[in-house]
Amino acid sequence: MSAAGLDGHGPEVLAEIAEVRETVARLHAELPRWELVVWTAGNVSQRLRTADLFVIKPSGVTYDELTPESMVVCDLDGNLVDGTRSPSSDTAAHAYVYRHMAHVGGVVHTHSTYATAWAARAEPVPCVLTMMADEFGGDIPVGPFALIGDDSIGQGIVETLSTSRSPAVLMRNHGPFTIGKDAKAAVKAAVMVEEVARTVHISRQLGEPTRISQEHVDSLYDRYQNVYGR
Amino acid sequence: MSAAGLDGHGPEVLAEIAEVRETVARLHAELPRWELVVWTAGNVSQRLRTADLFVIKPSGVTYDELTPESMVVCDLDGNLVDGTRSPSSDTAAHAYVYRHMAHVGGVVHTHSTYATAWAARAEPVPCVLTMMADEFGGDIPVGPFALIGDDSIGQGIVETLSTSRSPAVLMRNHGPFTIGKDAKAAVKAAVMVEEVARTVHISRQLGEPTRISQEHVDSLYDRYQNVYGR
Amino acid sequence: MSAAGLDGHGPEVLAEIAEVRETVARLHAELPRWELVVWTAGNVSQRLRTADLFVIKPSGVTYDELTPESMVVCDLDGNLVDGTRSPSSDTAAHAYVYRHMAHVGGVVHTHSTYATAWAARAEPVPCVLTMMADEFGGDIPVGPFALIGDDSIGQGIVETLSTSRSPAVLMRNHGPFTIGKDAKAAVKAAVMVEEVARTVHISRQLGEPTRISQEHVDSLYDRYQNVYGR
Amino acid sequence: MSAAGLDGHGPEVLAEIAEVRETVARLHAELPRWELVVWTAGNVSQRLRTADLFVIKPSGVTYDELTPESMVVCDLDGNLVDGTRSPSSDTAAHAYVYRHMAHVGGVVHTHSTYATAWAARAEPVPCVLTMMADEFGGDIPVGPFALIGDDSIGQGIVETLSTSRSPAVLMRNHGPFTIGKDAKAAVKAAVMVEEVARTVHISRQLGEPTRISQEHVDSLYDRYQNVYGR
Repeated sequence: MSAAGLDGHGPEVLAEIAEVRETVARLHAELPRWELVVWTAGNVSQRLRTADLFVIKPSGVTYDELTPESMVVCDLDGNLVDGTRSPSSDTAAHAYVYRHMAHVGGVVHTHSTYATAWAARAEPVPCVLTMMADEFGGDIPVGPFALIGDDSIGQGIVETLSTSRSPAVLMRNHGPFTIGKDAKAAVKAAVMVEEVARTVHISRQLGEPTRISQEHVDSLYDRYQNVYGR
Repeated sequence: MSAAGLDGHGPEVLAEIAEVRETVARLHAELPRWELVVWTAGNVSQRLRTADLFVIKPSGVTYDELTPESMVVCDLDGNLVDGTRSPSSDTAAHAYVYRHMAHVGGVVHTHSTYATAWAARAEPVPCVLTMMADEFGGDIPVGPFALIGDDSIGQGIVETLSTSRSPAVLMRNHGPFTIGKDAKAAVKAAVMVEEVARTVHISRQLGEPTRISQEHVDSLYDRYQNVYGR
Repeated sequence: MSAAGLDGHGPEVLAEIAEVRETVARLHAELPRWELVVWTAGNVSQRLRTADLFVIKPSGVTYDELTPESMVVCDLDGNLVDGTRSPSSDTAAHAYVYRHMAHVGGVVHTHSTYATAWAARAEPVPCVLTMMADEFGGDIPVGPFALIGDDSIGQGIVETLSTSRSPAVLMRNHGPFTIGKDAKAAVKAAVMVEEVARTVHISRQLGEPTRISQEHVDSLYDRYQNVYGR
Repeated sequence: MSAAGLDGHGPEVLAEIAEVRETVARLHAELPRWELVVWTAGNVSQRLRTADLFVIKPSGVTYDELTPESMVVCDLDGNLVDGTRSPSSDTAAHAYVYRHMAHVGGVVHTHSTYATAWAARAEPVPCVLTMMADEFGGDIPVGPFALIGDDSIGQGIVETLSTSRSPAVLMRNHGPFTIGKDAKAAVKAAVMVEEVARTVHISRQLGEPTRISQEHVDSLYDRYQNVYGR
């Protein structure tokens, strides 16, 4: 794979790339820290503010080897622009999200255990916790089954998230994708989707947890996003 | 938010604030250590002996960034008195507890997984372990559903704990709050409530655990609080 | 509590005490490492070869503070002989085991989650794993409900283990006690009892695991204890 | 046990032995890192390219003590050739696999919890996750019950894996064995078999996960092995 290179870009773009390589490399360490991934699974990306490019993890590199230099830069069609390694095999899905959701600046994908367990049953996580109302504004939705290799996964993510307040979607038989205004927000959503998937799973093991009324969900979500979230 | 400041307080109070900032910052590290929190969730506070003030975690700060200096000081109405950041969004609940329970010197709130799972079903944890009899003196009670934003959460905590020997309450659809004579005791209760919630949950997955008779619970609780606890 | 002191003992005993304090302090670190304990729960002891004494953890000390010097020395009635702190509140049970089981050189007590979950249902762990046959020689038995404060717990341990090949007993509503030729062997049994309690629990959640025939259990146990174990 | 020694081997073999001792020692650290083993359980081996020998963990050594020097070298009948300790008690099974599967360069054995839980029920893990299709090409199969001491375990592994695309077999009442082109690939399979055994277990606790159609499994497996895997 030969990269197009960054020759056409000015110093502002090059400076942002250096900064975002650092950010994305550092945020990958949050995935094993919160036990969202094993081995080399999972990937984080962030879109640039200054150009139609994003920075993502290379393919098949272990978490011990991740450095700012090893991160790769792609255009919004998912083509490699800068970097010495192949981009993550999930790059097409990240790129599709950036092309179709203008407000999204960060995307994360994991196979975190409890979120993936709900995804394998194609069952949304019901909103029974105040922290779910705060962060997700309701149930966590399930996206379609989609094969890797074309835009199917990206389409499934965008279609599902476009009709939900949730920044997380559980792709069927696959695992969660999360979005945010930047990579840090998407990583936070990846941590929180696993936490609530786990807590609600455990609660349901011994009976039916009580739903929070829609009115209370709306009130909690509004306060968290507008007051607490600043 | 502009803080009232500490100008009216003498050297004894200022010395205690410095000491309690240190204590509260250090005790926050116990929350991720025992896997009671993810991301920035969870908060610890301690009341001063020398003034009607308490020290609590600021809002939205990660566990890696917590230092004595970043802790904030509030009065018993929950107003910021000293500190450069906003107090935790749970400050009103901590303040309410301090105003209404004179013997309480420390408060902890988490969303620890198993305790929160019982809370989502509004089900008390039955006393089936000697260590529960020791530490909690019986079942761990459930408090009402309450929205953040006024004194509802604080009232629910105080009403529930006033009629129980337990230093922990499971607030419905929300998570545990614990109290103690100081922050360390409240942190210990937060660790223990998750541990017993987890153990009893697992025990009940494959059948019904045997309750300990009230007489034995009383005997264990009395010994632990009065003999062992000194 | 005033200690009798070590004045009557010769240099050989004093040298062994120094060595065993080191061993017992170091082995306590295995309990949080393998997630068998939270906070200050759990205790390890080892009997001396050179005198009727044993070394055990002091009461209420956190795992970060455990040093060889903080360990305490007791006689076989559980009286403090040397040390500046009170012995563990479980000392009477350890002492009873040493008085009644001459071949036992080490005792460990924890409230490890899965073992305690079986204990709360008073249900033995069935022998469905080759590693259980190897290490425990069959099912892991349940001991009686017993209150702390006299010899009841010690008696329950000794009566149960005297009629079993297992080095571990699950005391009802309480947790596991394990024995070994020294403290290291008892710690290994404490690690293994939690591991098999957890694995068999998980296996039974989705159906009934297959028992290993008594003939095969005997064959595995014999080989492991006599060939592998040297 | 007296070792035959390496006298008949040239510098190329001796150099590869030094390199593989290092690799195998380092890879053992992945087993506790991903929580696949407790205490001294679990073993990794790698076959040499330059001679009919393999390097494996010695028996009963803790993970803290594992060094390149402590690893042992065996011939393909499992006899010790070089090393100061006894080879792992599972060496005969590793040797049998190398004798009968020419393409296998690495073998790993653990008692990882969730994989062993499926093995205790003699139940294959159904292919309900895209990452299972990628890595295992279908269900993870169960091998026969076999006693240690002769070639029964090795035969069970080879017979089961010869009729499956899976690099992992769950030996009944025992635990998983995994294979790969080298030890690193076999360790990756050991990490992944536990991860998918755990995720599918959790998914099935609250209902039936949806199978992926054979056509999609084949398509995912083909892409992962031939495109992604290079």
